Amino acid sequence: MQRQAGRTILQSSLLQLAFLIFKNLGQIKNSMKNAFPELKNDLLLRTLNGREVERPPVWMMRQAGRYLPQYMEIRKKYTFFERVETPELACEITIQPIDELGPDAAIIFSDILTVPQALGIDVDLVKGKGPVIDNPIRSVDDAFAILARDVPGKLNHVMEAITLTRRELNGRVPLIGFAGAPWTLFCYMVQGEGSKNFAKAKAFMYQHPDAARHVMKELTKATIDYLKAQVSAGAQVVQLFDSWAGLLGPEDFNEWAMPCLMEICDAVDEVPLILFAKGSWYALERLSFKSGAAAVGLDWTITPEYGREATRGEIVLQGNFDPSKLMMPADEIKRQTTRMIDRFGPQKYIANLGHGILPNIPVDHARAFIDAVKEYEPRKVV
Amino acid sequence: MQRQAGRTILQSSLLQLAFLIFKNLGQIKNSMKNAFPELKNDLLLRTLNGREVERPPVWMMRQAGRYLPQYMEIRKKYTFFERVETPELACEITIQPIDELGPDAAIIFSDILTVPQALGIDVDLVKGKGPVIDNPIRSVDDAFAILARDVPGKLNHVMEAITLTRRELNGRVPLIGFAGAPWTLFCYMVQGEGSKNFAKAKAFMYQHPDAARHVMKELTKATIDYLKAQVSAGAQVVQLFDSWAGLLGPEDFNEWAMPCLMEICDAVDEVPLILFAKGSWYALERLSFKSGAAAVGLDWTITPEYGREATRGEIVLQGNFDPSKLMMPADEIKRQTTRMIDRFGPQKYIANLGHGILPNIPVDHARAFIDAVKEYEPRKVV
Repeated sequence: MQRQAGRTILQSSLLQLAFLIFKNLGQIKNSMKNAFPELKNDLLLRTLNGREVERPPVWMMRQAGRYLPQYMEIRKKYTFFERVETPELACEITIQPIDELGPDAAIIFSDILTVPQALGIDVDLVKGKGPVIDNPIRSVDDAFAILARDVPGKLNHVMEAITLTRRELNGRVPLIGFAGAPWTLFCYMVQGEGSKNFAKAKAFMYQHPDAARHVMKELTKATIDYLKAQVSAGAQVVQLFDSWAGLLGPEDFNEWAMPCLMEICDAVDEVPLILFAKGSWYALERLSFKSGAAAVGLDWTITPEYGREATRGEIVLQGNFDPSKLMMPADEIKRQTTRMIDRFGPQKYIANLGHGILPNIPVDHARAFIDAVKEYEPRKVV
Repeated sequence: MQRQAGRTILQSSLLQLAFLIFKNLGQIKNSMKNAFPELKNDLLLRTLNGREVERPPVWMMRQAGRYLPQYMEIRKKYTFFERVETPELACEITIQPIDELGPDAAIIFSDILTVPQALGIDVDLVKGKGPVIDNPIRSVDDAFAILARDVPGKLNHVMEAITLTRRELNGRVPLIGFAGAPWTLFCYMVQGEGSKNFAKAKAFMYQHPDAARHVMKELTKATIDYLKAQVSAGAQVVQLFDSWAGLLGPEDFNEWAMPCLMEICDAVDEVPLILFAKGSWYALERLSFKSGAAAVGLDWTITPEYGREATRGEIVLQGNFDPSKLMMPADEIKRQTTRMIDRFGPQKYIANLGHGILPNIPVDHARAFIDAVKEYEPRKVV
């Protein structure tokens, strides 16, 4: 009877196990697939987790970019979206600056306009002009037609690029994923191209607030799905770019941009999230204390002293070297970089530019910036 | 003997008088020429002089612009610089919004790039592209070749336009003259065209600081001469536009832009000067207390509360309605305009936009903005 019962228990346990395996197959497959090499340089992650560090980590926004001769070689052969959509190319481009300059993090080579593409907006990149959209949102109907459906599935090439790159990085540095924030994506989707003031997009928002709210809501949902999928694919940190936040006044920012940022930060809680809302100096306190982000990026119009004061020294800050200053002589770049760290302080700080690195920057100048951070007087962790 | 002496004294006095008249002929001619009609609406001048007023004055930056059908008619017939350089056309265009909308000031129709033109920089306005410069500053030699010589003489058409317009306004409202600030003009002169970040101009400044300083110094001198000439010609207020101040970080602003602004404000003391340095929120206190300007303009990223606090309620502020908000329904524009005045307070305040009025704004919407200010609950001057 006991034996009989034992067999029954065993049989039932095996059955349960089989059921569990079957039920969680996707997750198990994922975690096996994502058995990535161990991380050797975890300086960025320790900083983002609020730990004391020996020196600030450093990386550069748009570091896989047009200042690198290696990148320009690839650029000759493939269009921009070929580079973005071919995982092997995106991987190679992402790793180029790691090999060349040795920053403390890699950021996946991609574009913020992938999400609009996944939502049915046709984005083309026209040389000398930037992004051009064939079917921008022009009417209330266009706006309500935007629906966030299976965005990660449509952007599977990005996930593949992330998984491949994380493997190829072989634990040298963590890999950062990213997305554009809903307000910034809305700007492009309505304006149809880059702009100094995105007047059409703002006009649409003021004239059709319900339709605009719908688009922003779908973009928020899409961005959450997208960033979560990036994390599953291997992103160890994510950054959210609200590049056009500065076009909004403080009240419009609170009404239109901030709720999306808060919802995304709240939902994407698997890895640290860095929030960069360019130009929104007036929202610094709210971004820091209300968003729940692990770190906040600053552009160069904010002094280190103002940044620290507005965030009461409690928040991890990232930034904010003026990208144009990389045209200074290399020794002056080093001097100014060291001074910037002195002013922010070496703790709770990620050294970076205040916006993306510009084309035509000599590689040695980018190196001077990174070296200055890496050579910053190392202090022992107490 | 007495008679003899009397005659001698008379003769000598007549001689002296003749000499004095001859010596001051230019000045006398000027003051006769400038015997302008008496000013009927002096609300702007009283506000700028710190007097208590019954309601804030209102005008709109770029109010003689592409939103006005009357202007578009003239635009069909003449190129941009034909319009700027023909006093009769500039006069007509300046007065159009006064007739149509009734703001409390006229601003002379002109362009900030007149000064670079007077310094030998060939500016063209290309449709859909903005200003394009054939011979931008590309080298240190180009920079040192810039010399401020007889700028008012070369821009005599502007002075003629001002004198003619002030006459034609017939005292209805005061006439505002203006100039671009040296930093903003430097941006165009080096970049050679409009730009989102003026990276070439900033790079030049960081690489060749002495050459850049020379250009900025000559531009300062040219701007002083130019504004003083505008005042002699009839401008009753002048505004200085540092449209690209926000591209500089706080330290660079203090080093590069601020000294020029201070020197100009100091030198042009004949009439009140309004300083508008767009995007330089970080310099608001210095602009207010160090520049010596009669008023400081704000863009819409600065809340009225922040503006008043940073300037301790002591300074006349101008602004800062988001130009895109003129796309809202007219009654909402009125509501938001009234709320803006409530927040700034009706004293020491000039109602205006936070940047130039955009094309495609319905005339009725521009009117709603101006009417809302004019209908603001009038309060008796105590």
